[in-house]
Amino acid sequence: MPLENSYLLPAAADMHVHLRNAPGPISQLVTPTIRQAGVDCVFVMPNLAPRPVVTVAEAQEYQRHLQALDPEVTYLMSLYLHSSITPDEIRAAKKAGIAGVKAYPKGATTNSEWGVVSFEPFYEVLATMEEEGIVLNLHGEVPSNPADGVTVMNAEARFLPVLHDLVERFPRLKIVLEHCTSADAVEAVRSVGDQVVGTITAHHLSLLVDDWSANVNNYCKPSAKSPRDRQALLNAVVHSNGKFFLGTDSAPHDISAKKGKGNTAAGVFTQPYALGYVLTALEEGIIRGDIPDAAISSSKLAGFFSHYGRRFYGVPESKHKVLLTRNGQTIAESFKGEGAEIVPFRAGEKTWSVEWQ
Amino acid sequence: MPLENSYLLPAAADMHVHLRNAPGPISQLVTPTIRQAGVDCVFVMPNLAPRPVVTVAEAQEYQRHLQALDPEVTYLMSLYLHSSITPDEIRAAKKAGIAGVKAYPKGATTNSEWGVVSFEPFYEVLATMEEEGIVLNLHGEVPSNPADGVTVMNAEARFLPVLHDLVERFPRLKIVLEHCTSADAVEAVRSVGDQVVGTITAHHLSLLVDDWSANVNNYCKPSAKSPRDRQALLNAVVHSNGKFFLGTDSAPHDISAKKGKGNTAAGVFTQPYALGYVLTALEEGIIRGDIPDAAISSSKLAGFFSHYGRRFYGVPESKHKVLLTRNGQTIAESFKGEGAEIVPFRAGEKTWSVEWQ
Repeated sequence: MPLENSYLLPAAADMHVHLRNAPGPISQLVTPTIRQAGVDCVFVMPNLAPRPVVTVAEAQEYQRHLQALDPEVTYLMSLYLHSSITPDEIRAAKKAGIAGVKAYPKGATTNSEWGVVSFEPFYEVLATMEEEGIVLNLHGEVPSNPADGVTVMNAEARFLPVLHDLVERFPRLKIVLEHCTSADAVEAVRSVGDQVVGTITAHHLSLLVDDWSANVNNYCKPSAKSPRDRQALLNAVVHSNGKFFLGTDSAPHDISAKKGKGNTAAGVFTQPYALGYVLTALEEGIIRGDIPDAAISSSKLAGFFSHYGRRFYGVPESKHKVLLTRNGQTIAESFKGEGAEIVPFRAGEKTWSVEWQ
Repeated sequence: MPLENSYLLPAAADMHVHLRNAPGPISQLVTPTIRQAGVDCVFVMPNLAPRPVVTVAEAQEYQRHLQALDPEVTYLMSLYLHSSITPDEIRAAKKAGIAGVKAYPKGATTNSEWGVVSFEPFYEVLATMEEEGIVLNLHGEVPSNPADGVTVMNAEARFLPVLHDLVERFPRLKIVLEHCTSADAVEAVRSVGDQVVGTITAHHLSLLVDDWSANVNNYCKPSAKSPRDRQALLNAVVHSNGKFFLGTDSAPHDISAKKGKGNTAAGVFTQPYALGYVLTALEEGIIRGDIPDAAISSSKLAGFFSHYGRRFYGVPESKHKVLLTRNGQTIAESFKGEGAEIVPFRAGEKTWSVEWQ
């Protein structure tokens, strides 16, 4: 078999998670699954509805509610880039330990109504972030626009000039291009300095456009793309050297938002089995010939899952280890709680089990 | 307004429809909507489940059941290209008035399990079709295949070499490239002789990949693609000169196959409002600047809707006329019958009404 049957690794850090409003039925269901996956540190997205997290006080209150759900997890908090955020708020955020500011292009994804049209009005805020060492987290898509030929298939590639422009204007600003989904995005991240990194989800290492076209539970933004793009993501994982690390973009939606009336909510729920999904995708990638067999090692997995993300955010290494074992568990058909039911990625399939040491 | 407020046109021919098994709950619900759309002649697809239409006797029985549902419609029948079909069956089909033989690439779309892997075993059958003047109807996609980089987004473009090869081998064979969805397909049809034509659906004149990504009722095969592709289809309609005509590929599925458990069935239901959808799409195309205002005329509409398809199949012109009137009706939220509920395209929107003269 291309991979070992088990790996003993440092507890992982998942640098892009959606835990939804807390208190609330979805956060209550989802937050306890973080450690089930072998993860003890998460970077929490601020795009709550109806109002995103735009002040330090809101982020701190959100963090307290999450800590109440599982105090053993480190929650790195973020603000939502918005016109109400001032340089002073950025300085206060730094003091309060807030890790990043997330920029959503207006109209490009879930809860992006408050998002950014142009970065120009934010130059002063970005300069302060650069000065303070607060990370800019980019949802790297432009909104779809038929007149310019932009669709979900090329929205990420079309965003990359914006990334390059920001890098040029703010050369010391730490930037994460979140949930890279294309060969172009991987190449863009590689082409600039070490202050710019990319997160890679679990599901984009498996999915192609075909896989979400007929399956609402696989539909997400940015959407999964071509075999060539998937291959580039798999190679980014195994040749990361710190440039790419895990950020699952686990995005829980109640089943009614996936299968009910109205449009399909974008997002794949991967939180409870995050590491197992990655290992399965790597193994499938080796079998297909997308990545070389020899590329996988414990130290590379430890880097992608744990070290690289923590180092980028300046978070201490975990004191815990987790033992991952092939085919050790079956993915649940759904997670049900009071007022919410969420279908996980690859429901019903075998995956790797996680044992805390 | 770019279009007139009403058009008096010959009754239309829809040269690609799915009426499903007859007798059966869906055919009972759908067949009576053919004339509601202003259509009195349809080319009926043979991909019934669990067994497609592969014999002349089956096609004739199917036709009788459809005639019982609405005897005022002309049903052009087809066989499903399959290893059991012999040159003798083709000659019998010609005598029985069967109009075409539909080839489905195995695995590319709904009910294609019986489909074609390679055309080579069918060369004798195709030669007989060429001789007899029976049309070959092509579902022009290769099956998705990550190893070759084939996804739903390029599966049609990748099929076009097969079309060119068939044209070269059987230069007098009448061929329809069904439901063209890409600029490449339009170009391929234009590049070969008049014995090769293309059908164009109503929904591909409106939809882009973004429109089906989050809406299961807009999901179909071949999938809707880019703004450039949509523009090519709109221009194929208004610059058809007989090369392109209406074939809606109206594909009714019960709501449980769209929104229920399991994967999403591919198909958009457009039968009851087929002409109205096209007029709306043309108008939207003019407003966007995809097609010139002056391109629309009654005679072009009559050609695309009615004359070109009938001439290609050798069917007499309709004796009836239909009056289409802007905003004359509202598209139903769904069509409900015994054991079936089907959501039409653009449910709830205004569309053109149809009055038989």
